[in-house]
Order: sequence, then structure tokens, then C-alpha cells
Amino acid sequence: MAVNLHAPSAADLHAVPGVRIGVAMAGIRKADRKDLVVFALDEGTVAAGVFTRNRFCAAPVQLCREHLTAGAGIRALVVNTGNANAGTGADGLVRARRSCDTAARLLGLRPQQVLPFSTGVILETLPIDRLEAGLPAAVAALRPDAWLDAAEGIMTTDTVLKAASRQLSIGGRTVTVTGIAKGAGMIRPDMATMLGFVATDAVIGQAALDALVREAADGSFNCITVDGDTSTNDSFVLMATQRAGHARIDTLDSAQGRALRDAVVAVSAQLAQAIVRDGEGATKFITVRVEGGRDIAECRRVAYAIAHSPLVKTAFFASDPNLGRILAAVGYAGIADLDQGLIDLYLDDVHVASQGGRHPRYEEAQGQRVMKQSEITVRVLLHRGNASSTVWTCDLSHDYVSINADYRS
Amino acid sequence: MAVNLHAPSAADLHAVPGVRIGVAMAGIRKADRKDLVVFALDEGTVAAGVFTRNRFCAAPVQLCREHLTAGAGIRALVVNTGNANAGTGADGLVRARRSCDTAARLLGLRPQQVLPFSTGVILETLPIDRLEAGLPAAVAALRPDAWLDAAEGIMTTDTVLKAASRQLSIGGRTVTVTGIAKGAGMIRPDMATMLGFVATDAVIGQAALDALVREAADGSFNCITVDGDTSTNDSFVLMATQRAGHARIDTLDSAQGRALRDAVVAVSAQLAQAIVRDGEGATKFITVRVEGGRDIAECRRVAYAIAHSPLVKTAFFASDPNLGRILAAVGYAGIADLDQGLIDLYLDDVHVASQGGRHPRYEEAQGQRVMKQSEITVRVLLHRGNASSTVWTCDLSHDYVSINADYRS
Repeated sequence: MAVNLHAPSAADLHAVPGVRIGVAMAGIRKADRKDLVVFALDEGTVAAGVFTRNRFCAAPVQLCREHLTAGAGIRALVVNTGNANAGTGADGLVRARRSCDTAARLLGLRPQQVLPFSTGVILETLPIDRLEAGLPAAVAALRPDAWLDAAEGIMTTDTVLKAASRQLSIGGRTVTVTGIAKGAGMIRPDMATMLGFVATDAVIGQAALDALVREAADGSFNCITVDGDTSTNDSFVLMATQRAGHARIDTLDSAQGRALRDAVVAVSAQLAQAIVRDGEGATKFITVRVEGGRDIAECRRVAYAIAHSPLVKTAFFASDPNLGRILAAVGYAGIADLDQGLIDLYLDDVHVASQGGRHPRYEEAQGQRVMKQSEITVRVLLHRGNASSTVWTCDLSHDYVSINADYRS
Repeated sequence: MAVNLHAPSAADLHAVPGVRIGVAMAGIRKADRKDLVVFALDEGTVAAGVFTRNRFCAAPVQLCREHLTAGAGIRALVVNTGNANAGTGADGLVRARRSCDTAARLLGLRPQQVLPFSTGVILETLPIDRLEAGLPAAVAALRPDAWLDAAEGIMTTDTVLKAASRQLSIGGRTVTVTGIAKGAGMIRPDMATMLGFVATDAVIGQAALDALVREAADGSFNCITVDGDTSTNDSFVLMATQRAGHARIDTLDSAQGRALRDAVVAVSAQLAQAIVRDGEGATKFITVRVEGGRDIAECRRVAYAIAHSPLVKTAFFASDPNLGRILAAVGYAGIADLDQGLIDLYLDDVHVASQGGRHPRYEEAQGQRVMKQSEITVRVLLHRGNASSTVWTCDLSHDYVSINADYRS
């Protein structure tokens, strides 16, 4: 199912000094599957996060925001699958707090030092007793080289586990960046949403890390869509354990800051693209690039209009060069003064439309050739400015409907 | 396929004095099907229209706007299926003008008195020679009682023809309102888009008719969505032949103005709902009502977020009361200061969520019972104001993907 995506092996994933991971089976929704992951972080770790903008955000997202601003120093993450603890009102918040309390007690921390994450069915009560009963096993299992297990432990409708790792040299020291993610559709009945956790042993200050997590999200998880449904639980957390021994990075504008940024963005983008490659029912990986806009915001609007169009997505599924659908999406993206007479459309290297009409030398066979590929780039030139933006998405197939319609049958 | 929708019989459709209709087979895309419709309107007819806001609008839409503002008096409409004449650049405009020129010559009119409409595949050249060759037959066929033929002649992926008619009394005179529409998906490969034509013999001034066409569109075609793709060709035209013999209506605020408005809105809403009932692959007709918003605009944003969500739509298809997906859509509809702790959600008479969480007495069996129906109302209470809005939509099924993916196979 997944488009050109294979799980890494344990040997590909470098441990991050200062990070230990424990995975357990807590039976939160189903028996005999890894569904509870604990990250334990060495003292001195700095953490930063970005979260869903959905106003109906889940209880753990609300607690994450609270604990990150409390300033007690984040020392642990608790992640469960099988239940999103979203749409659960005040009771959901009580249960999320209990997961932090219990993890803190087991690890000798304060509750504000724990970040909770949930993913799964919305509008159902989190079975906190089962989660708490599973925590001792997860804590007992803590070890540095469990990244692959953790990637498996946060999967929901994912068909391939998602992890990425790389190393770089900063000030003569080896620095590691390793991360995992989950996600396949934005929300999903007995499962749900996108989670991303990236850790590094780099030495970096809080302000620079806050900037880095936003840059990394903007260059990765904020550039993808499967079905356009913004989840209640989306979370992306970046942790820096400060163990690598180089001089502290306080700005991303230094050479060392840029080097670290490039590595973190690359790992994050690899994880984000893996989510799209494993999109529910995906058979194609589509890059939508919009150039020549007045600003990045309008380029993103056009790119997302194309990437969200069910008609464009079904055309990709069918390998059907029905490319007027792309122009129609450009037209309704919400740019009030767009001049359709300026638009160019390319499908990979094929010039499909120019000046808003069919390119005189475009032939259907060219479009057909590109549409058959498993990876395709759509490029739209607006010719009204110098900004550009890129979004990654997948097609809309029969399997998308099956996956999202048939889960109780 | 269509949800509780049946074609009217010819006897149900009252002729409108002052309107004659001719239908022909022009072979524009396929042979042996009605694909060309001409409306001929008596002198003195007043016309008004609303059109797609897509910036990539089709050539005929551009000409309609031009001719409606020219003030020469609209006397004819020419409608073809099989080709949308959209994404066709300057050449498309030349061809659309030729269709008006030829129709005007055959009918003894000026070209500015003709409105052209096209529906069908985008990004392909309109075969204007075939359209022009078919016009004499359509003109020769003109007669007052051809509304059913016209409804058939503008169909594309529609499985049921769409027409509605009613009569009312104004000032002791019988007034007729009759209309046809087409549409099933917003855009569609070898066919496309939504068209609506409503005629009345009422006596009404231009300014009041301009207001009426907007009110009618806002209460009908602007309240529906199948897949969220705004077409390049959407057009809705209201024609008043002034033949009914009552005193002229110059404002919709009079008793007679309100009576006419109610009839026109009712006919338009019936046509609009027929489009949703015949939505590509539709198995359910869904009414989404959002109440308690600060203004209508934010209610519409929330309603459309629900109605466009592929995850909500696939849940309806599966009769799966996976209603957290609806709350998630409410949350990402773009109301920045929405308080999730205030939200109520009803499915028909079932109180699903209150204060942003699962209602204490809600049981899955209740949701299951409603989800199995072919017609369902989703009601969301925001509790932040007094505005409300309603949107009609359908579910997202395997057949939607098939219809939109497989047309060339």
C-alpha cells in the first residue's frame, strides 16, 4: 500500500544520548499490541512543541501546552494509542492529569515534567486504569535503543512504521538526531492523528529550540495533507538532551545552528513525507509546488486547494490526465484578483497549460505518461510575485473509503 | 442511486408564458443524445444571474456577465453539454461569442441578447462547428412545453433529471415559476458543473429581480456541496417574462414581492436539493444545521467544514456513528476563539455531545439508529450568538471514487 516506503531497521536508528524509551502492552483498546510508550529524558533536557490548531483539541494537548509553559523542565513523555482522549470534556482532562501523575511518581519527577499524548478514537473515555496499570512495565523496559519499538508502539492505521535518524558533526562532536512519527489519515475511528517526536543530544538553548521546532514543523508536518481533516491531537515535540559536548547553540543563524537546523528539518521532513506515503489508501505520492505568488500564504492556499480536491485526487488515483481539475482548484483557492490568463501548469516536465489555456504542444499522451508514475510533481506558476510553497499529498482511492467506512464491519 | 429523488412528469411542469424551449442533438461529445438547449424569451423579459466565484471561470460565464450588464435585454439562452469551454484561454471566448452570434442570427436578435452556457470537460476546445450546426434544429423545435426535454438536455453525470414547478396567485392572476437544473459533482471529466435556469411570468422590475436571484441562490445553490470543488462554470439564471398581468413588483418587501420570492426560493431549493440527492455516488442526504453563531458567515464555515470532511462523509456512507469526526470538523472550521466546552451536537433528535464532551445519556445504539436512515440532520449549537445556517450535502462512497476515477477506462 505505502508508496515507496520501507521501515528502517533498528541498526539505522542511532540512539540519542540522554533518551531512554520503554514500550508496553497496556490493552487500551486491543489486547496483545504495543500501545504505550514512555520517553525518559536526562536532567537538563530542553523541549519544545507545536500542536494542532483545532479548537476541539484533545485533553493531552491542553496539558502539554500547560506543562511546556510551566518551566519545570520536561523529563518524560507518555504516549498511548487506541484512544484519543478528545471530545471528552472536563473528565478527559482529569484522566490525562492522572497519566502524568502516575508516570511522574514512577520516575521520581513532578507531574509538570511529564507530557501526555493520546491517539485513537474520539469522543470515548480514556481507560486510565489500564494505562496506569501498564506504566510500570513501560518504565521497567526503559533503554536507549528502543526507537524501533517506539515507532511500532505509536502506530494506528499506519501500515509501515516511521522513523528516521542521522548524525552530523558540530564543533568536532558527533550529534545525533533521531525521530519517530505516526499518522495515515488525519483522524480515524479506533485510532487517530499525527504524532511526531524528534530527539537530539545537541546543546541548544530554549529560545533557539522554540524557533527550531517551528521551523521544522513548517518545513515538514505543516506541508502535508492526506484528507484535509485537521486532527484534534496533532503534536510534534522536539527534545534536546544537551549531551553532545559542543558549545551551546543560541541562534539558528550561526553556522552550527544552521547545521543542526538542516538535520532536524531533514529528519522531520522524512517523517512527514512517510506519513503521506503511508496515507490511507495511497497509491501515489504527489508534490504540489506553487511558484510566483505574492506571498507564501497565497501559494500555500493554492497548493492546498489542489491537494485537498477530491476530484484532483481521484484523477491521480485513476492515472487520468484530467488536468482541468487542477486549474479549477487554482481558480477557487481564494485569490480574489487572480488573473487566469497568466497561469502555467506543469506535470513534471510536461507543460500542460500556458496563459490559462491548454498549451498548444501539449498532448494527452504526455500527461498520461506522467500520471502513471508513483511519484508526480504538479507545478503551478502564478506569475504575480516571487514567493513559492510546496505541499505533499497522496491520491484518493477506493481503499481510502474502505479504510474510513468499514472499520466496524 | 439518487436519494429519494424521482424525475417529475411533463404534466407536473407548468409552461411559463413567454418562454419557448428547443432541444437538439448536436453530437458535441457523443452522438445521439440531447446536448443542445435553446431558450427563447419574449420581448420585455428581464433576466438576472449569479455565477461561479472561481477565478478560472469558463468563457461562457465571462460572456454572460458581459451581456447581462450590456442592457440590451436578454432574449435567448444557448446551453450545451459535453464541453465546458473552460481553461480554453482567448480562443474559448471567440468560440463562445460565435455561439451567441449564430443563435442571434437565427432568432433575429443582437448577440448581446443571448446568454451562453457550457458544461462538460475542462481544458478542451469547444467544437463550435458542431454546436452551430445543431442550432437550427433547436430553434425549429421551440415550443412552450419542452421543460422536461430541456432538463434531460442539460444532464451530464446526473442520473435523474431535475425540474420543479409551482404556481401562485398574485393580484388575482396565476403566476408560474418553473425551473430546471443539472449537477451531480462539482466538476467532472467529460461533463461538468451546476447549471440552474428558473423562469416566471411574473411582472417584476430589474432591481427587484437582481435582488431575488441573489436571495434565491443564497437559499438554494449556495447551500449545497457534493465534494467541495467549486466549478468553473456554475451559473444560475432567473428570467421573468412580465406576462402574468398583475401590478409590477418593484420590491421584495411588499406582500406580493414576498409571495413571489417564497415561490422562487422554493423552486430553487428543490432543484438544489435534487443536485445533492443525485450527488455522485450519494447514498444519503444530509442536512447540516449550525445554530448559535455570532454571524451567518461563521455558521456557514462550520457547516461547510462538516459537509466537506471526507472522514465525516465516509462515516455517513458506512452508517457509522463515529461522531467525534463531526466535533473535530467544528474545531478546525476556523473560528479562532471557539470555546469547545460550549458545544452541543445532535443527530436528528439524539443528543450526542454536550459541553464539548459525550452526552452522559448518549448511547452508541441511538447514533447507530439515526445513521442508518437515508436522510439525516446534523445540528450543532455553538452558544455564542443568534445566527444560524443550513447546508445540504451527501455522503462519500466507493461509487464517488469510481465515477470520478474510471471514466476513461
